Amino acid sequence: MGKTDWKAEAKALKKKVRKLKDNLTAAAGPVAEAVGDAVGDVIAAAKKAMKPVSPLAPASFPALPAIRGVEFAAVEAGVRYQNRKDVMLVRLAPGTAMAGVFTRSTTRSACVRDCQAKLALKAGGAGAAIIVNSGNSNAFTGKLGDEAVAAITSVVADAMAMPPSRVFSSSTGVIGEPLPHDRITAKVPDLVAALQEDAIEMAAHAMMTTDTFPKGAGATVQGEGGTIHIAGIAKGSGMIAPDMATMLVYIFTDAKIAPGALQRMVSRNVDSTFNSITVDSDTSTSDTLLVAATGQSDAAEVKGPVAKAFETALRGVMRDLALQVVRDGEGATKLVEVRVTGAATDEDAAKAAFAIANSPLVKTAVAGQDPNWGRIVAAIGKSGAAAERDLLSIRFGDILVAEKGWRAPDYKEEDGAEYMLQPELLIHVDLGLGRAKRSVWTCDLTARYVEINADYRS
Amino acid sequence: MGKTDWKAEAKALKKKVRKLKDNLTAAAGPVAEAVGDAVGDVIAAAKKAMKPVSPLAPASFPALPAIRGVEFAAVEAGVRYQNRKDVMLVRLAPGTAMAGVFTRSTTRSACVRDCQAKLALKAGGAGAAIIVNSGNSNAFTGKLGDEAVAAITSVVADAMAMPPSRVFSSSTGVIGEPLPHDRITAKVPDLVAALQEDAIEMAAHAMMTTDTFPKGAGATVQGEGGTIHIAGIAKGSGMIAPDMATMLVYIFTDAKIAPGALQRMVSRNVDSTFNSITVDSDTSTSDTLLVAATGQSDAAEVKGPVAKAFETALRGVMRDLALQVVRDGEGATKLVEVRVTGAATDEDAAKAAFAIANSPLVKTAVAGQDPNWGRIVAAIGKSGAAAERDLLSIRFGDILVAEKGWRAPDYKEEDGAEYMLQPELLIHVDLGLGRAKRSVWTCDLTARYVEINADYRS
Repeated sequence: MGKTDWKAEAKALKKKVRKLKDNLTAAAGPVAEAVGDAVGDVIAAAKKAMKPVSPLAPASFPALPAIRGVEFAAVEAGVRYQNRKDVMLVRLAPGTAMAGVFTRSTTRSACVRDCQAKLALKAGGAGAAIIVNSGNSNAFTGKLGDEAVAAITSVVADAMAMPPSRVFSSSTGVIGEPLPHDRITAKVPDLVAALQEDAIEMAAHAMMTTDTFPKGAGATVQGEGGTIHIAGIAKGSGMIAPDMATMLVYIFTDAKIAPGALQRMVSRNVDSTFNSITVDSDTSTSDTLLVAATGQSDAAEVKGPVAKAFETALRGVMRDLALQVVRDGEGATKLVEVRVTGAATDEDAAKAAFAIANSPLVKTAVAGQDPNWGRIVAAIGKSGAAAERDLLSIRFGDILVAEKGWRAPDYKEEDGAEYMLQPELLIHVDLGLGRAKRSVWTCDLTARYVEINADYRS
Repeated sequence: MGKTDWKAEAKALKKKVRKLKDNLTAAAGPVAEAVGDAVGDVIAAAKKAMKPVSPLAPASFPALPAIRGVEFAAVEAGVRYQNRKDVMLVRLAPGTAMAGVFTRSTTRSACVRDCQAKLALKAGGAGAAIIVNSGNSNAFTGKLGDEAVAAITSVVADAMAMPPSRVFSSSTGVIGEPLPHDRITAKVPDLVAALQEDAIEMAAHAMMTTDTFPKGAGATVQGEGGTIHIAGIAKGSGMIAPDMATMLVYIFTDAKIAPGALQRMVSRNVDSTFNSITVDSDTSTSDTLLVAATGQSDAAEVKGPVAKAFETALRGVMRDLALQVVRDGEGATKLVEVRVTGAATDEDAAKAAFAIANSPLVKTAVAGQDPNWGRIVAAIGKSGAAAERDLLSIRFGDILVAEKGWRAPDYKEEDGAEYMLQPELLIHVDLGLGRAKRSVWTCDLTARYVEINADYRS
């Protein structure tokens, strides 16, 4: 009894159909040939279905504000992929403040450790650079990994006349294979020559791996004496598929703000944005968020009420990018907000929300458009959060589904089923115990997720 | 842009093929008809593939020793399923010692709470009974749930002339729908009339839900003055799919042993057996393990070296049943032992082992027979266990894959790929930090798992 998954099934069917087509074409003349063409169309449609863009993708890459003091370039270096740009470089003008947040994985990559060390220096004054490659994550590559980071950042530093301590690098892709860093350093002169202000979308493209669309978000804030602009890009199809779907995020602004203030602002807002998304509960060895403020806006230094407005705008950009990562969750067809209210503690709210958002059974039910609230009850039960059966309530959007230890009296399965047909869903659980709350965002778990992750390397 | 999973793909292909068949049959005479028949075969094969028995299933249900003082019966009560037995009853002779372990879910079912309360009474003397239904879990059914348990256990108690406190019940199936307990109580006279010693396999069948095979295991132990027999049955395709795949386990022995001693023995061994398996990290609201010792063996009371041998045999039966549950993991094609050694603490060993065993990315890689050790590194990194990149090593079976922070010098990808073709795999991680260890068992995550859980109710 072999493996009987649907992909094998579909492939076997395709093979037999192709054979049928050959036989028909050989045997039965023009009628059969017409039929054969129809079969060809079926095969072409099946092939196309293998590389879909996420149905949750935005219609197009957004128009982002230009950020003074930031330039982008991207090239084909052939790190792993062929016939596409796979390395991008960002140049940040002198005086840029840098802040960052990184994966807490104990097996995090060489470039993450290097970025963390460099940010800790709190160096300023000089310009800065960010170089990112896709195709190879340079994680778990031992001493070779550290050498690759040193080689890349020092070549970039030389070419751009800045200290290596101001060159930040990220790598995303396969774990455990030495990064062919020569291919990257050989392209640094081309990258530097190509730098231009209006190329942020190309940079977003160059760092894609299993992503099905490039991710961007922007905002403007009225400062004192001028406008402040924010533009960010992200990649990732999981939180996080470590093979090829690490989350990398770079946000740029022309705000005048000190590195310490910027770092505090970023740290304060990371829990409600990037730390509130989950595709498959797997954490990458390479997750990186870098925020760069060039200070070249006409507006005065960010403080007082402007600081508040700027932080709100920054959080909005972070939230937007985070949700785009979930929208591009591998195989995703639904975006789900899991909102837990009424928890006894913040920790309990998070435990319950993530238990629901990570439950394979909840996520497969969503994929099947099945209003299976029993699985939500079970996920709450296993979460470790304080919960009492007779106090909790469950809602799909505004529809009250369960309360007082049982199905709500007015709930109709048809209403739940109809709600589940929407591409964006809200699962709202009130635990009825306290005032703590937490929202997290997830996507459904589809057969396509398994296909992507079972077949990637083989 | 709609959902583009492989099932839809295969279904669409099937539909088009069927249409082709019709056109051909109508248009092109005998040749086309023969081709049409071939297409019919393809469709039949595809349909058959939708209901497979697990490829990891044992060849047949094992021959189990008869246990004196234990009788079984099963009937069709139509709780939810039609045309199959869905309720089973066990009668245990007077003097039977009972022990049990249950789910820790805070939303656990009414029958689990009832069993826990009854075991706490430590009542003895009278006989005992166990009644189990499939199709409806009676979980999250509020006050109705408690009433259903009271109704069922009191009817059984009356029919078997024993106190209700000695009647234990379990229910497995859909959550949140009232259990139609009248259908069960109406069948109690038939069940009592049908009780017989040699019907354990039928009982195992009656409690199946998404299981693809009934699970049994047995052992014999040489006691003082006679032989002690152990026979157990289990159901479950997940640890645990709460919709239809709760784990229920009942183990019977004719050993003479006091309830307290039996309970301690069961509790001591549950961590290394049932608490060391995971299919999807989801915990059921209904998981139940009951162990009954009738004391009717010719052997003297279990103590001294016999107690040791008995405990070893009991653990063996528990381990065997636990692994059968993983073998029947929904959609499983591989059984995987994840063994972590060299951990700093027992807690770290468990954290790392479960992080690997529950990682969707590790499990999809196993499904794809991909020796993707990078994902194992990432799972260790996110586990929360103390780990140092340069001290840990990873083995597939005896093959050293990674050590000293990088791929092992002699490791060849082909060797790993060949190893992954086997149906039973060992992933062995040594953290190199201490002496603590833990083994857990899991299965792969296939597209079939998603199909089962996305489509069950809809």
